[in-house]
Amino acid sequence: MKTYTKEDFEKLPSRYKARFFNSLSGFKPISLIGTKSAQGIENVAPFSRFVHIGARPPYIGVIFRPHSVRRDTLENIRETKSFTINHVHENIVKQAHHAAAKFDQGVSEFDKVGLTAEYGGMPAPYVKEAKIKIGLHLAEEQRITVNDTILVVGSVVEVQLNEQLVKEDGFIDLVAAGSMASSNVDAYYNVSKHSRFDYPQPDAPVIDLPKKRF
Amino acid sequence: MKTYTKEDFEKLPSRYKARFFNSLSGFKPISLIGTKSAQGIENVAPFSRFVHIGARPPYIGVIFRPHSVRRDTLENIRETKSFTINHVHENIVKQAHHAAAKFDQGVSEFDKVGLTAEYGGMPAPYVKEAKIKIGLHLAEEQRITVNDTILVVGSVVEVQLNEQLVKEDGFIDLVAAGSMASSNVDAYYNVSKHSRFDYPQPDAPVIDLPKKRF
Repeated sequence: MKTYTKEDFEKLPSRYKARFFNSLSGFKPISLIGTKSAQGIENVAPFSRFVHIGARPPYIGVIFRPHSVRRDTLENIRETKSFTINHVHENIVKQAHHAAAKFDQGVSEFDKVGLTAEYGGMPAPYVKEAKIKIGLHLAEEQRITVNDTILVVGSVVEVQLNEQLVKEDGFIDLVAAGSMASSNVDAYYNVSKHSRFDYPQPDAPVIDLPKKRF
Repeated sequence: MKTYTKEDFEKLPSRYKARFFNSLSGFKPISLIGTKSAQGIENVAPFSRFVHIGARPPYIGVIFRPHSVRRDTLENIRETKSFTINHVHENIVKQAHHAAAKFDQGVSEFDKVGLTAEYGGMPAPYVKEAKIKIGLHLAEEQRITVNDTILVVGSVVEVQLNEQLVKEDGFIDLVAAGSMASSNVDAYYNVSKHSRFDYPQPDAPVIDLPKKRF
Protein backbone atom coordinates (compact mmCIF):
# COMPACT_ATOMS: atom_id res chain seq x y z
CA MET A 1 0.00 0.00 0.00
CA LYS A 2 1.31 3.42 -0.96
CA THR A 3 0.74 6.61 1.05
CA TYR A 4 0.22 9.80 -0.97
CA THR A 5 0.73 12.97 1.05
CA LYS A 6 -0.23 16.55 0.20
CA GLU A 7 3.28 17.06 -1.16
CA ASP A 8 2.75 14.11 -3.53
CA PHE A 9 -0.62 15.56 -4.67
CA GLU A 10 1.07 18.78 -5.67
CA LYS A 11 3.52 16.94 -7.91
CA LEU A 12 0.80 15.13 -9.89
CA PRO A 13 0.17 16.43 -13.44
CA SER A 14 -3.05 18.46 -13.54
CA ARG A 15 -5.27 16.09 -15.53
CA TYR A 16 -3.86 13.02 -13.78
CA LYS A 17 -4.78 14.70 -10.49
CA ALA A 18 -8.31 15.48 -11.71
CA ARG A 19 -8.92 11.81 -12.64
CA PHE A 20 -7.36 10.50 -9.42
CA PHE A 21 -9.53 12.61 -7.14
CA ASN A 22 -12.63 12.29 -9.31
CA SER A 23 -12.53 8.53 -8.83
CA LEU A 24 -11.32 8.52 -5.22
CA SER A 25 -14.58 9.18 -3.36
CA GLY A 26 -16.24 5.94 -4.53
CA PHE A 27 -19.03 5.00 -6.91
CA LYS A 28 -21.47 7.74 -7.84
CA PRO A 29 -25.03 7.63 -9.18
CA ILE A 30 -25.49 8.71 -12.81
CA SER A 31 -28.56 10.56 -14.05
CA LEU A 32 -29.57 12.98 -16.76
CA ILE A 33 -30.81 16.36 -15.59
CA GLY A 34 -33.55 17.77 -17.82
CA THR A 35 -34.24 21.52 -17.87
CA LYS A 36 -35.80 24.17 -20.07
CA SER A 37 -34.69 27.79 -20.41
CA ALA A 38 -37.05 30.74 -19.96
CA GLN A 39 -36.90 31.00 -23.80
CA GLY A 40 -38.14 27.42 -24.10
CA ILE A 41 -34.87 25.72 -25.15
CA GLU A 42 -34.72 22.19 -23.72
CA ASN A 43 -31.49 20.96 -22.19
CA VAL A 44 -30.30 17.54 -21.02
CA ALA A 45 -26.92 16.71 -19.47
CA PRO A 46 -25.39 13.92 -17.35
CA PHE A 47 -24.53 14.55 -13.69
CA SER A 48 -23.15 12.31 -10.97
CA ARG A 49 -22.67 14.65 -8.02
CA PHE A 50 -26.03 13.90 -6.40
CA VAL A 51 -26.49 13.53 -2.66
CA HIS A 52 -29.51 12.43 -0.64
CA ILE A 53 -30.54 15.36 1.57
CA GLY A 54 -33.72 14.07 3.17
CA ALA A 55 -36.75 11.79 2.82
CA ARG A 56 -39.48 13.32 4.97
CA PRO A 57 -39.98 15.67 3.16
CA PRO A 58 -37.91 14.50 0.18
CA TYR A 59 -34.90 16.56 -1.00
CA ILE A 60 -32.00 15.75 -3.35
CA GLY A 61 -28.84 17.85 -3.70
CA VAL A 62 -26.57 18.32 -6.74
CA ILE A 63 -23.15 19.96 -6.86
CA PHE A 64 -22.43 22.33 -9.77
CA ARG A 65 -19.02 23.65 -10.73
CA PRO A 66 -18.22 27.34 -10.21
CA HIS A 67 -20.43 29.62 -12.25
CA SER A 68 -17.51 31.13 -14.18
CA VAL A 69 -18.35 29.72 -17.63
CA ARG A 70 -21.63 28.93 -19.40
CA ARG A 71 -23.66 26.46 -17.32
CA ASP A 72 -26.97 25.94 -19.10
CA THR A 73 -28.38 23.49 -16.59
CA LEU A 74 -27.76 25.69 -13.57
CA GLU A 75 -29.00 28.81 -15.36
CA ASN A 76 -32.18 27.04 -16.46
CA ILE A 77 -32.82 25.83 -12.92
CA ARG A 78 -32.42 29.37 -11.63
CA GLU A 79 -34.74 30.77 -14.31
CA THR A 80 -37.53 28.22 -14.06
CA LYS A 81 -36.97 26.80 -10.52
CA SER A 82 -37.56 23.38 -12.07
CA PHE A 83 -35.46 20.33 -13.05
CA THR A 84 -35.78 16.58 -13.51
CA ILE A 85 -33.42 13.73 -12.58
CA ASN A 86 -33.61 10.69 -14.87
CA HIS A 87 -31.63 7.54 -14.02
CA VAL A 88 -29.25 6.32 -16.74
CA HIS A 89 -29.56 2.64 -17.75
CA GLU A 90 -27.59 0.54 -20.23
CA ASN A 91 -29.77 1.34 -23.26
CA ILE A 92 -29.23 5.09 -22.95
CA VAL A 93 -25.68 5.24 -21.57
CA LYS A 94 -24.05 6.36 -24.84
CA GLN A 95 -26.70 9.02 -25.38
CA ALA A 96 -26.20 10.17 -21.77
CA HIS A 97 -22.43 10.49 -22.22
CA HIS A 98 -22.89 12.23 -25.57
CA ALA A 99 -25.11 14.82 -23.85
CA ALA A 100 -21.99 16.06 -22.01
CA ALA A 101 -20.51 17.37 -25.28
CA LYS A 102 -20.32 21.13 -25.82
CA PHE A 103 -23.20 21.68 -28.23
CA ASP A 104 -23.98 25.04 -29.79
CA GLN A 105 -26.31 27.16 -27.72
CA GLY A 106 -29.96 27.26 -28.76
CA VAL A 107 -30.22 23.64 -29.93
CA SER A 108 -32.08 20.93 -28.02
CA GLU A 109 -29.58 18.42 -26.69
CA PHE A 110 -32.40 15.87 -26.64
CA ASP A 111 -32.51 15.95 -30.45
CA LYS A 112 -28.72 16.02 -30.80
CA VAL A 113 -28.15 12.82 -28.80
CA GLY A 114 -31.33 10.93 -29.69
CA LEU A 115 -33.33 11.19 -26.47
CA THR A 116 -36.95 12.28 -26.13
CA ALA A 117 -38.25 15.14 -23.99
CA GLU A 118 -41.51 14.33 -22.26
CA TYR A 119 -43.59 16.50 -19.94
CA GLY A 120 -45.31 15.67 -16.66
CA GLY A 121 -46.62 18.14 -14.13
CA MET A 122 -43.47 20.31 -14.21
CA PRO A 123 -41.95 23.04 -16.41
CA ALA A 124 -38.78 20.93 -16.91
CA PRO A 125 -38.79 17.98 -19.33
CA TYR A 126 -38.23 14.34 -18.36
CA VAL A 127 -36.20 11.88 -20.44
CA LYS A 128 -38.86 9.59 -21.88
CA GLU A 129 -36.44 6.65 -22.20
CA ALA A 130 -35.53 6.64 -18.47
CA LYS A 131 -37.16 4.17 -16.08
CA ILE A 132 -36.90 6.25 -12.91
CA LYS A 133 -37.80 9.95 -13.30
CA ILE A 134 -37.86 12.55 -10.56
CA GLY A 135 -39.36 16.04 -10.83
CA LEU A 136 -37.96 18.73 -8.53
CA HIS A 137 -38.45 22.36 -7.64
CA LEU A 138 -35.47 24.50 -6.63
CA ALA A 139 -35.60 24.78 -2.83
CA GLU A 140 -32.21 26.17 -1.85
CA GLU A 141 -28.76 27.13 -3.12
CA GLN A 142 -25.55 27.14 -1.08
CA ARG A 143 -22.16 28.35 -2.23
CA ILE A 144 -19.32 26.18 -0.98
CA THR A 145 -16.66 28.68 -0.09
CA VAL A 146 -13.51 26.54 -0.41
CA ASN A 147 -13.85 26.26 -4.20
CA ASP A 148 -16.96 28.23 -5.23
CA THR A 149 -18.94 25.12 -6.20
CA ILE A 150 -22.69 25.36 -5.74
CA LEU A 151 -25.00 22.97 -3.92
CA VAL A 152 -28.48 23.05 -5.43
CA VAL A 153 -31.15 21.43 -3.24
CA GLY A 154 -34.29 20.30 -5.03
CA SER A 155 -37.59 19.46 -3.39
CA VAL A 156 -39.04 16.29 -4.96
CA VAL A 157 -42.53 17.05 -6.24
CA GLU A 158 -43.18 14.18 -8.67
CA VAL A 159 -41.85 10.66 -9.27
CA GLN A 160 -42.47 8.42 -12.29
CA LEU A 161 -41.58 4.74 -12.22
CA ASN A 162 -43.00 1.28 -12.75
CA GLU A 163 -44.83 0.30 -9.55
CA GLN A 164 -43.35 -3.19 -9.75
CA LEU A 165 -39.94 -1.69 -8.94
CA VAL A 166 -41.19 -0.79 -5.46
CA LYS A 167 -41.00 -3.53 -2.78
CA GLU A 168 -43.77 -3.86 -0.21
CA ASP A 169 -41.78 -1.84 2.33
CA GLY A 170 -41.13 1.13 -0.01
CA PHE A 171 -37.59 0.09 -1.07
CA ILE A 172 -36.95 0.71 -4.79
CA ASP A 173 -35.23 -2.08 -6.75
CA LEU A 174 -32.62 -0.04 -8.65
CA VAL A 175 -31.06 -3.21 -10.10
CA ALA A 176 -34.38 -4.21 -11.70
CA ALA A 177 -34.57 -0.68 -13.14
CA GLY A 178 -31.10 -1.17 -14.67
CA SER A 179 -29.79 1.99 -12.97
CA MET A 180 -26.02 2.32 -13.35
CA ALA A 181 -23.18 3.71 -11.25
CA SER A 182 -20.38 5.98 -12.49
CA SER A 183 -16.96 7.34 -11.71
CA ASN A 184 -14.75 10.16 -13.01
CA VAL A 185 -17.45 11.53 -15.41
CA ASP A 186 -16.45 8.97 -18.08
CA ALA A 187 -16.74 5.49 -16.52
CA TYR A 188 -20.03 3.60 -16.25
CA TYR A 189 -20.77 0.49 -14.22
CA ASN A 190 -23.39 -2.24 -13.90
CA VAL A 191 -24.60 -2.96 -10.41
CA SER A 192 -25.73 -6.29 -8.91
CA LYS A 193 -27.26 -7.24 -5.57
CA HIS A 194 -25.04 -8.34 -2.70
CA SER A 195 -27.21 -8.13 0.41
CA ARG A 196 -29.80 -6.11 2.24
CA PHE A 197 -29.37 -6.35 6.00
CA ASP A 198 -31.77 -5.95 8.89
CA TYR A 199 -31.35 -3.00 11.28
CA PRO A 200 -28.09 -3.71 13.19
CA GLN A 201 -28.09 -4.43 16.93
CA PRO A 202 -25.03 -3.86 19.17
CA ASP A 203 -24.72 -7.41 20.49
CA ALA A 204 -26.21 -9.57 17.73
CA PRO A 205 -24.89 -10.73 14.37
CA VAL A 206 -25.91 -8.88 11.21
CA ILE A 207 -28.69 -10.77 9.41
CA ASP A 208 -30.11 -10.60 5.88
CA LEU A 209 -33.62 -9.31 5.22
CA PRO A 210 -35.99 -11.79 3.49
CA LYS A 211 -35.39 -12.08 -0.28
CA LYS A 212 -38.72 -10.49 -1.19
CA ARG A 213 -37.48 -7.25 0.38
CA PHE A 214 -34.35 -7.14 -1.84
CA MET B 1 -45.38 3.68 -15.38
CA LYS B 2 -47.00 5.26 -12.32
CA THR B 3 -46.85 8.96 -11.45
CA TYR B 4 -46.57 9.80 -7.75
CA THR B 5 -47.48 13.39 -6.93
CA LYS B 6 -46.87 15.37 -3.74
CA GLU B 7 -50.35 14.40 -2.59
CA ASP B 8 -49.41 10.72 -3.00
CA PHE B 9 -46.16 11.26 -1.02
CA GLU B 10 -48.13 12.62 1.91
CA LYS B 11 -50.29 9.49 2.06
CA LEU B 12 -47.31 7.11 2.28
CA PRO B 13 -46.67 5.55 5.72
CA SER B 14 -43.68 7.23 7.38
CA ARG B 15 -41.12 4.37 7.18
CA TYR B 16 -42.29 3.36 3.69
CA LYS B 17 -41.71 6.95 2.64
CA ALA B 18 -38.22 6.98 4.20
CA ARG B 19 -37.19 3.84 2.28
CA PHE B 20 -38.75 5.05 -0.99
CA PHE B 21 -36.91 8.37 -0.98
CA ASN B 22 -33.70 6.91 0.44
CA SER B 23 -33.43 4.62 -2.57
CA LEU B 24 -34.78 7.07 -5.17
CA SER B 25 -31.69 9.18 -5.86
CA GLY B 26 -29.67 6.26 -7.27
CA PHE B 27 -26.68 4.21 -6.15
CA LYS B 28 -24.50 5.71 -3.45
CA PRO B 29 -20.90 5.05 -2.43
CA ILE B 30 -20.40 3.27 0.91
CA SER B 31 -17.48 3.98 3.23
CA LEU B 32 -16.61 3.85 6.89
CA ILE B 33 -15.78 7.16 8.53
CA GLY B 34 -13.10 6.84 11.21
CA THR B 35 -12.79 9.49 13.93
CA LYS B 36 -11.41 9.91 17.45
CA SER B 37 -12.87 12.08 20.20
CA ALA B 38 -10.86 14.69 22.09
CA GLN B 39 -10.88 12.13 24.94
CA GLY B 40 -9.25 9.54 22.69
CA ILE B 41 -12.28 7.27 22.07
CA GLU B 42 -12.13 5.83 18.54
CA ASN B 43 -15.28 5.73 16.44
CA VAL B 44 -16.16 4.06 13.15
CA ALA B 45 -19.51 4.24 11.32
CA PRO B 46 -20.84 3.65 7.79
CA PHE B 47 -21.91 6.60 5.63
CA SER B 48 -23.17 6.85 2.08
CA ARG B 49 -24.02 10.52 1.66
CA PHE B 50 -20.67 11.49 0.12
CA VAL B 51 -20.33 13.93 -2.74
CA HIS B 52 -17.30 14.92 -4.81
CA ILE B 53 -16.68 18.65 -4.25
CA GLY B 54 -13.45 19.21 -6.14
CA ALA B 55 -10.21 17.68 -7.38
CA ARG B 56 -7.73 20.57 -7.70
CA PRO B 57 -7.38 20.96 -4.73
CA PRO B 58 -9.21 17.81 -3.56
CA TYR B 59 -12.35 18.10 -1.40
CA ILE B 60 -15.05 15.57 -0.46
CA GLY B 61 -18.41 16.46 1.15
CA VAL B 62 -20.56 14.39 3.54
CA ILE B 63 -24.13 15.09 4.63
CA PHE B 64 -24.97 14.59 8.31
CA ARG B 65 -28.46 14.49 9.79
CA PRO B 66 -29.65 17.34 12.02
CA HIS B 67 -27.59 17.71 15.17
CA SER B 68 -30.56 17.06 17.47
CA VAL B 69 -29.42 13.74 18.94
CA ARG B 70 -26.01 12.24 19.75
CA ARG B 71 -23.82 12.21 16.61
CA ASP B 72 -20.41 10.92 17.64
CA THR B 73 -18.87 11.15 14.19
CA LEU B 74 -19.85 14.78 13.61
CA GLU B 75 -18.85 15.80 17.14
CA ASN B 76 -15.47 14.11 16.79
CA ILE B 77 -14.86 15.85 13.46
CA ARG B 78 -15.67 19.19 15.06
CA GLU B 79 -13.39 18.49 18.03
CA THR B 80 -10.37 17.17 16.16
CA LYS B 81 -10.93 18.66 12.65
CA SER B 82 -9.94 15.23 11.34
CA PHE B 83 -11.67 12.20 9.76
CA THR B 84 -10.95 9.30 7.44
CA ILE B 85 -13.03 7.74 4.64
CA ASN B 86 -12.44 4.01 4.11
CA HIS B 87 -14.12 2.22 1.18
CA VAL B 88 -16.25 -0.79 2.12
CA HIS B 89 -15.51 -4.05 0.23
CA GLU B 90 -17.15 -7.48 0.40
CA ASN B 91 -14.93 -8.87 3.18
CA ILE B 92 -15.87 -6.08 5.61
CA VAL B 93 -19.47 -5.36 4.59
CA LYS B 94 -21.08 -7.07 7.62
CA GLN B 95 -18.69 -5.34 10.00
CA ALA B 96 -19.45 -2.03 8.27
CA HIS B 97 -23.22 -2.50 8.64
CA HIS B 98 -22.80 -3.63 12.26
CA ALA B 99 -20.93 -0.38 12.99
CA ALA B 100 -24.23 1.49 12.43
CA ALA B 101 -25.71 -0.10 15.61
CA LYS B 102 -26.25 2.13 18.65
CA PHE B 103 -23.34 1.08 20.86
CA ASP B 104 -22.84 2.40 24.39
CA GLN B 105 -20.84 5.57 24.54
CA GLY B 106 -17.19 5.28 25.51
CA VAL B 107 -16.49 1.97 23.75
CA SER B 108 -14.45 1.63 20.56
CA GLU B 109 -16.72 0.57 17.73
CA PHE B 110 -13.67 -0.87 16.01
CA ASP B 111 -13.40 -3.53 18.73
CA LYS B 112 -17.16 -4.11 18.86
CA VAL B 113 -17.48 -4.96 15.16
CA GLY B 114 -14.10 -6.59 14.56
CA LEU B 115 -12.27 -3.92 12.59
CA THR B 116 -8.79 -2.55 13.29
CA ALA B 117 -7.89 1.10 13.88
CA GLU B 118 -4.64 2.10 12.22
CA TYR B 119 -2.89 5.47 12.23
CA GLY B 120 -1.26 7.40 9.41
CA GLY B 121 -0.30 11.06 9.46
CA MET B 122 -3.66 12.19 10.92
CA PRO B 123 -5.35 12.36 14.34
CA ALA B 124 -8.27 10.21 13.05
CA PRO B 125 -7.85 6.45 12.64
CA TYR B 126 -8.06 4.54 9.36
CA VAL B 127 -9.75 1.16 8.97
CA LYS B 128 -6.80 -1.19 8.46
CA GLU B 129 -8.90 -3.72 6.49
CA ALA B 130 -9.96 -1.16 3.84
CA LYS B 131 -8.19 -1.02 0.47
CA ILE B 132 -8.79 2.66 -0.28
CA LYS B 133 -8.27 5.04 2.65
CA ILE B 134 -8.59 8.81 2.59
CA GLY B 135 -7.45 11.19 5.31
CA LEU B 136 -9.22 14.56 5.56
CA HIS B 137 -9.13 17.78 7.54
CA LEU B 138 -12.36 19.66 8.22
CA ALA B 139 -12.42 22.57 5.76
CA GLU B 140 -15.98 23.90 5.91
CA GLU B 141 -19.45 23.31 7.35
CA GLN B 142 -22.73 24.43 5.78
CA ARG B 143 -26.18 24.12 7.31
CA ILE B 144 -28.83 23.21 4.75
CA THR B 145 -31.77 25.29 5.80
CA VAL B 146 -34.66 23.25 4.36
CA ASN B 147 -34.14 20.40 6.84
CA ASP B 148 -31.20 21.36 9.08
CA THR B 149 -28.88 18.72 7.65
CA ILE B 150 -25.19 19.59 7.67
CA LEU B 151 -22.73 19.47 4.79
CA VAL B 152 -19.21 18.81 6.06
CA VAL B 153 -16.49 19.51 3.48
CA GLY B 154 -13.17 17.78 4.07
CA SER B 155 -9.87 18.68 2.46
CA VAL B 156 -8.04 15.51 1.37
CA VAL B 157 -4.59 15.49 2.95
CA GLU B 158 -3.55 11.83 2.65
CA VAL B 159 -4.48 8.82 0.51
CA GLN B 160 -3.51 5.19 1.06
CA LEU B 161 -4.04 2.58 -1.64
CA ASN B 162 -2.23 -0.05 -3.66
CA GLU B 163 -0.46 1.74 -6.52
CA GLN B 164 -1.57 -1.00 -8.93
CA LEU B 165 -5.14 0.28 -8.59
CA VAL B 166 -4.14 3.51 -10.35
CA LYS B 167 -4.17 3.48 -14.16
CA GLU B 168 -1.48 5.36 -16.08
CA ASP B 169 -3.78 8.38 -16.52
CA GLY B 170 -4.63 8.70 -12.80
CA PHE B 171 -7.99 6.87 -12.94
CA ILE B 172 -8.53 4.59 -9.91
CA ASP B 173 -9.88 1.08 -10.60
CA LEU B 174 -12.59 0.88 -7.92
CA VAL B 175 -13.76 -2.52 -9.23
CA ALA B 176 -10.28 -4.02 -8.67
CA ALA B 177 -10.40 -2.54 -5.14
CA GLY B 178 -13.71 -4.34 -4.57
CA SER B 179 -15.42 -1.08 -3.58
CA MET B 180 -19.19 -1.51 -3.23
CA ALA B 181 -22.25 0.67 -3.84
CA SER B 182 -25.21 1.07 -1.48
CA SER B 183 -28.79 2.22 -1.20
CA ASN B 184 -31.22 3.04 1.62
CA VAL B 185 -28.56 2.56 4.39
CA ASP B 186 -29.18 -1.22 4.40
CA ALA B 187 -28.61 -2.51 0.84
CA TYR B 188 -25.15 -3.30 -0.54
CA TYR B 189 -24.18 -3.94 -4.15
CA ASN B 190 -21.32 -5.34 -6.20
CA VAL B 191 -20.20 -3.24 -9.11
CA SER B 192 -18.78 -4.37 -12.48
CA LYS B 193 -17.32 -2.49 -15.44
CA HIS B 194 -19.54 -1.46 -18.33
CA SER B 195 -17.54 1.13 -20.28
CA ARG B 196 -15.24 4.11 -20.01
CA PHE B 197 -15.80 6.56 -22.83
CA ASP B 198 -13.58 9.15 -24.47
CA TYR B 199 -14.42 12.85 -24.08
CA PRO B 200 -17.66 13.38 -26.04
CA GLN B 201 -17.75 15.54 -29.20
CA PRO B 202 -20.93 17.21 -30.49
CA ASP B 203 -20.93 15.64 -33.95
CA ALA B 204 -19.11 12.35 -33.49
CA PRO B 205 -20.16 9.01 -32.02
CA VAL B 206 -19.20 8.15 -28.44
CA ILE B 207 -16.18 5.85 -28.39
CA ASP B 208 -14.62 3.59 -25.74
CA LEU B 209 -11.24 4.38 -24.22
CA PRO B 210 -8.56 1.69 -24.67
CA LYS B 211 -8.98 -1.26 -22.26
CA LYS B 212 -5.78 -0.48 -20.33
CA ARG B 213 -7.41 2.77 -19.18
CA PHE B 214 -10.45 0.95 -17.69
